[in-house]
Amino acid sequence: MNLNEIIKAARGEKPADLLVTNARIINVFTGEIVTGSLAVSEGYFIGFGDYTATKTIDAGNRFVAPGFIDPHVHIESSMACPTEFARAILVNGTTCIAADPHEIANVMGIEGINYMLKSAEHQPMNFYFTLSSCVPATDMETSGAVITARDLRSFIGNEKIVALAEMMNYPGVINGDPDVLAKIQAAKHHNKPVDGHAPGLRGRELNAYLSAGVGSDHECTTVSEAREKLEAGMRIMIRQGTGARNLEALLPIINAKTARRLMWCTDDRHPHDLLDEGHIDVIIRDAIGAGLDPVTAIQMATINPADYFRLDHLGAIAPGRQADFVIISDLSSLTVEQVYCRGINVAVNGEMQPDIEKPKPIPSRSSMNLNPAEVDFSIPVEGRRLRVMDIVPDQLITRHSVDDISPADGLAVSDPSRDLLKIAVVERHQGSGNIGKAFVRGLRLKKGAIASSVAHDSHNIVVVGTSDDDMKAAVKTVVDMEGGLAAIVDDKPVATLPLPIAGLMSLEPLEKIRNRMDQLIEVSRDLGSSLKDPYMTLSFLALPVIPELKITDKGLIDVNQFKVVPLFIDA
Amino acid sequence: MNLNEIIKAARGEKPADLLVTNARIINVFTGEIVTGSLAVSEGYFIGFGDYTATKTIDAGNRFVAPGFIDPHVHIESSMACPTEFARAILVNGTTCIAADPHEIANVMGIEGINYMLKSAEHQPMNFYFTLSSCVPATDMETSGAVITARDLRSFIGNEKIVALAEMMNYPGVINGDPDVLAKIQAAKHHNKPVDGHAPGLRGRELNAYLSAGVGSDHECTTVSEAREKLEAGMRIMIRQGTGARNLEALLPIINAKTARRLMWCTDDRHPHDLLDEGHIDVIIRDAIGAGLDPVTAIQMATINPADYFRLDHLGAIAPGRQADFVIISDLSSLTVEQVYCRGINVAVNGEMQPDIEKPKPIPSRSSMNLNPAEVDFSIPVEGRRLRVMDIVPDQLITRHSVDDISPADGLAVSDPSRDLLKIAVVERHQGSGNIGKAFVRGLRLKKGAIASSVAHDSHNIVVVGTSDDDMKAAVKTVVDMEGGLAAIVDDKPVATLPLPIAGLMSLEPLEKIRNRMDQLIEVSRDLGSSLKDPYMTLSFLALPVIPELKITDKGLIDVNQFKVVPLFIDA
Repeated sequence: MNLNEIIKAARGEKPADLLVTNARIINVFTGEIVTGSLAVSEGYFIGFGDYTATKTIDAGNRFVAPGFIDPHVHIESSMACPTEFARAILVNGTTCIAADPHEIANVMGIEGINYMLKSAEHQPMNFYFTLSSCVPATDMETSGAVITARDLRSFIGNEKIVALAEMMNYPGVINGDPDVLAKIQAAKHHNKPVDGHAPGLRGRELNAYLSAGVGSDHECTTVSEAREKLEAGMRIMIRQGTGARNLEALLPIINAKTARRLMWCTDDRHPHDLLDEGHIDVIIRDAIGAGLDPVTAIQMATINPADYFRLDHLGAIAPGRQADFVIISDLSSLTVEQVYCRGINVAVNGEMQPDIEKPKPIPSRSSMNLNPAEVDFSIPVEGRRLRVMDIVPDQLITRHSVDDISPADGLAVSDPSRDLLKIAVVERHQGSGNIGKAFVRGLRLKKGAIASSVAHDSHNIVVVGTSDDDMKAAVKTVVDMEGGLAAIVDDKPVATLPLPIAGLMSLEPLEKIRNRMDQLIEVSRDLGSSLKDPYMTLSFLALPVIPELKITDKGLIDVNQFKVVPLFIDA
Repeated sequence: MNLNEIIKAARGEKPADLLVTNARIINVFTGEIVTGSLAVSEGYFIGFGDYTATKTIDAGNRFVAPGFIDPHVHIESSMACPTEFARAILVNGTTCIAADPHEIANVMGIEGINYMLKSAEHQPMNFYFTLSSCVPATDMETSGAVITARDLRSFIGNEKIVALAEMMNYPGVINGDPDVLAKIQAAKHHNKPVDGHAPGLRGRELNAYLSAGVGSDHECTTVSEAREKLEAGMRIMIRQGTGARNLEALLPIINAKTARRLMWCTDDRHPHDLLDEGHIDVIIRDAIGAGLDPVTAIQMATINPADYFRLDHLGAIAPGRQADFVIISDLSSLTVEQVYCRGINVAVNGEMQPDIEKPKPIPSRSSMNLNPAEVDFSIPVEGRRLRVMDIVPDQLITRHSVDDISPADGLAVSDPSRDLLKIAVVERHQGSGNIGKAFVRGLRLKKGAIASSVAHDSHNIVVVGTSDDDMKAAVKTVVDMEGGLAAIVDDKPVATLPLPIAGLMSLEPLEKIRNRMDQLIEVSRDLGSSLKDPYMTLSFLALPVIPELKITDKGLIDVNQFKVVPLFIDA
C-alpha cells in the first residue's frame, strides 16, 4: 500500500487507476443506494465522483456492492486447498473469509495452522483465520495434535488471526476449565473476539458461557434461541451450509433494529453445493427472495463481519477501504457479474479471469503414520450379541441397536445379507496401532469396501467393508494416496479421491474434486448403497459428540454416556 | 475480575451480588425495552432473570440503561483534575470516557499523558484515552513539548489507549507529511481507530484525509457535511459542548439506518455547563426532547462508542459486560436517579455516594519556567499605526483592524478610553524569554489586568491590562500559583483560580472551580468587561489556527497568511 500515491490520487493530483461510472452503489453506512462513480487507486477506494482515471468501466446502472465476507467457514469441508477454494468462492463474490482451520489442526496441530497461514499468502482474495480452540475435540479419540492455551498464545497476536475460533467446548467454559478459560483470556488480552458454538444453550448455562466473554454464535436453529442469544449480546451468524441450513428458520429475527448484530456464514459447504449453488451470494439471494431488504442482506455479508472482526479496511465502499467489490446485474436475482479484489477484476460471469495468478498449492508432509499391512480387522467372537450403529439417513445421529452376530471360524464378520457391515477406525497420527472395530447398518454395501481419511474430528481412517481383505485394501489405498477417499472391489481400487494435504484436502480444482466424488458415489451405488453421500455419513460415524453410538480408534462410544462401551453384550 | 466466581454465579451455583428487579431494561442489541430482572456478580452483569442475590433492589418499573460513554472529551476544559472530573460526570450517568489529553500534552508532552494515565487509576469510573496526535498544534507558537510518531509508538499499544486522538493536522495528512502519516500508521498497526477533526473538509480533500485511514469526525456543523462524511465511512460524533453546539443542526441525519454510525460527544465543557446542564445525559435528553427515539439516543451513548473503540466489555447490559448502568425515572425527562459502575452504586440523585473512595488528586511538577520580574511589557513605537485584534463577542474568530497608536514617552501603551488594551503572550515552558506583544479591542477593561495560563493550544501565559505594572503583577500571580487565572487591580490580585496541574487544572472540586470562576468574571465586570467569559475569550486569542489576527509568544499571527506579521505598519 503506497499511501502517498493513494492520497495524491484521492486529491485528484494524479489519475486514479480505475473509475467505475454509472454505478448504483450500495452504501452500507447509510443503508442507501446512491448512483454515481467510484474511483480506485493502488487497490483502495479513494472516493466517489468524477475522477480522471487510466481505466474507466461503465457499470451500466448495475449495482456495486462491497465484496462478501464469510465470517465462519472450514475450508477443509470443500476438500479443496486454499488456492482452489479461493477460486471457487471468488467467482461468487466472496472476497474475504475468516476460516477456522479446525480439521487440519486436529491432524497436524500448530503445523497445520501454519500450513493454512502460509497457503493463504499471495491469494487473490483476503484470507483471515480464527484460531482453532478445541483440538482435540474430545479425549474419546486419538487426534494428531493437542493445542493448549500456551500454544494459542503464540499465535493470537498474528495479524491474520481475527478471533478465537468457535468455542465448542462449552461444558469446559461453563465448568471453568482453566485451560479453556486461558484460551479465551488470551484472545481477550489481544482484544480479539471469541466465536461461540453453543447449539441449544439457553438460560443460565448460556449466561455462564457468555460471562466468559464469548461474542458470537452460528448454531442457532430457532427464532426463540436466536432471540435469547441476541438479547444476551451475541452476534448471530445465520448459517446456511451443506448440512445445517438455518436461513429459513431464522429470517424472522432480522429487522431494522437487530440487523447490525447479524451476519451470514457457510460453516461447511461441500464441493457440489459450492459449485451448483454458490457461497455467501446464494444466502443473500435466498434471503432477498424470502423478502429481506437487499441492502440489509448485503450489510450482513459486508460491514457487519468487518466490524465484528475489526477489519476496518474491508466491508464497505469508501475511501480508505480496500477496493473489493462486486457488480451485480439486479438485486433480486443477485447475479454476480464481476468481482474485484484489491481493485483487480478477478472474475467475470462465474469464471476466474485467466490473467489472475494462481499461487501453487503447497504440498504438506505425510500425515499417515501407520503400516496398513499390520492392521488386523478380525473380530474374535466374545459374546452372543453385539451393539450396532444404525444409520439414520440424512442425519448425523445414529441409533444404538443390538443384534445377533454373524460368526465364521470364531470371528464376527460382515454379513451383507443382513446389512450388517464391519466398520473400523484406524488411528493414523501417532502410530499407536489403535483400531476401533464394530458393525454398522444402513450402508447396504453388497460387496467391496469404502474408506476415508476425512473422519470428524480427529480424522483417523474410517473404513466399512464386506470383507476384511477389501477393508485392508481400502486402508492401503488411502495410505498410499497420503489420505483421501477410496472405493474397493475385489481388493482393487475402483474409484479414489486423493487428499494428500493432511488427508483432508486435494491439490486439484474443485471441479475435479466434484467429478471424483461423483465417481465415488456412483461406485457406492453400484456396490449397493442408496445413501446420498456414504462418505459424508462415514465421516460423521467417527464423531463422538453426536448421539447415539459412534466409533473412534478407541472403540465404540456410547455418546449419551460419553464413554467407550464393549462391542459384545451377553458375553 | 474473578472469572470462575462470575461463571459460578451465572450458573446460579452461588448467589449473585446484586439483583435489580422490576426494571425496564434498555436492550441496545435488539433496540427493545424488556421488563425483567438483571443480576450482577463481581462487578459484571451475569444475566437476566430471577437469580438469588445477596442484595436486591427494586427498580420500581424504572428504566435501566447502560452507563453513558463520552468518546471525545478534553478533561482539561473543565479545569478539574481527573479525580474531580470523574465525580462531576459520574453523577450524570457517564461511566466511561475516552479523553484526549491534548492540553496537558502541549504543556508537558509524554509526561503529561503519563500524568493523566496515572491519575485515571483507581477511579470509580472507566477512563480511557486517545493519544494526542498534534503536539504542538502549529509551529507558530512555543509549546511545552513536541510529540513525534516515535513517541506515540511507545504508547499506542497501552490498553488504556483506545485510539489516536483527533487528527487536527488535516493539511499534514492531505499533503502526505511523513511524521503525520507515521502516527496514523502506528495506530493502524495496533488496530486502533484514528479520530478525525476536519471542520468543513469536503470532496477530494476529505477523500484524501479518509484514504489515510481516519475513522471519525466530531466537527460537523451541517447536515450536508455530516451526510457526506457518513457516506464516506466516517463515524460521526455529534458534539454538544460549551462552545460548539451541533445537536440541533445534526438531528436530521439520525435515522434507523444511520444511527449505528453515530455517537454523542462533549469535546469541551466548562464547569458551569457541567454543573448546570450535565454531561452526555443532557445531550440524550435534548435529543429525545427534539423527537429522537429514546433507545436510539441511548445506543448512541453506549453500544456505539463501545463498538467503535472495541470496548467489548462496556456499553450494554448483558452477561460478560461490566455492570455500569443508570436507573432513569422516565425517558422523556431522562432524570438519572442512580448510577452504578462495576456493580457499585456510585451516585444517587446527582450526588456521589459518600462511601465511594476519592483517589487523591496527584500534584504535578511546576510547569512555570520563567521569571516574571524579567518580563518587559513595553512596546517602543516603531510606526504610526498598528494592527489591532478586534474581538467578536461569542465567537472564536477576531477581526484584523488597523488603528492609531496611543503613545507615551516613545512607547505604545494601553488606552482604555479607546478600548485599546495591551495584550501579551509570555512563553512559560522553555525559558526562552519569548514574548508576543500587541493590542486588542473588545475587552473593555477600564483598569487592572487579567491573565491566564490556559491559552490554546500551547498554554503560554496570556495577559491583558490597562498598565504594564498590572500586567506584570498578573503574570507574577499566575506564576506564583504555578498556573491559573488572575485578576489584578492596582498591582494586587483581587480574584484568582490556581491551576497548579500544568497550569491547566485545579486540585479542587468542580463547584469550587465554578465559584472562583464566578468571582473572576464578577471582577472582570467591575473592571469594565461585558464579555460573558473574558478568560475564555483570552484563551482563544492565543490560538493561531482560527482567523483573523491572533497572538502567540512569537508575535502577532495573521492566520489567513499563517505567518507572523509586524505590530506596526506605516513605519
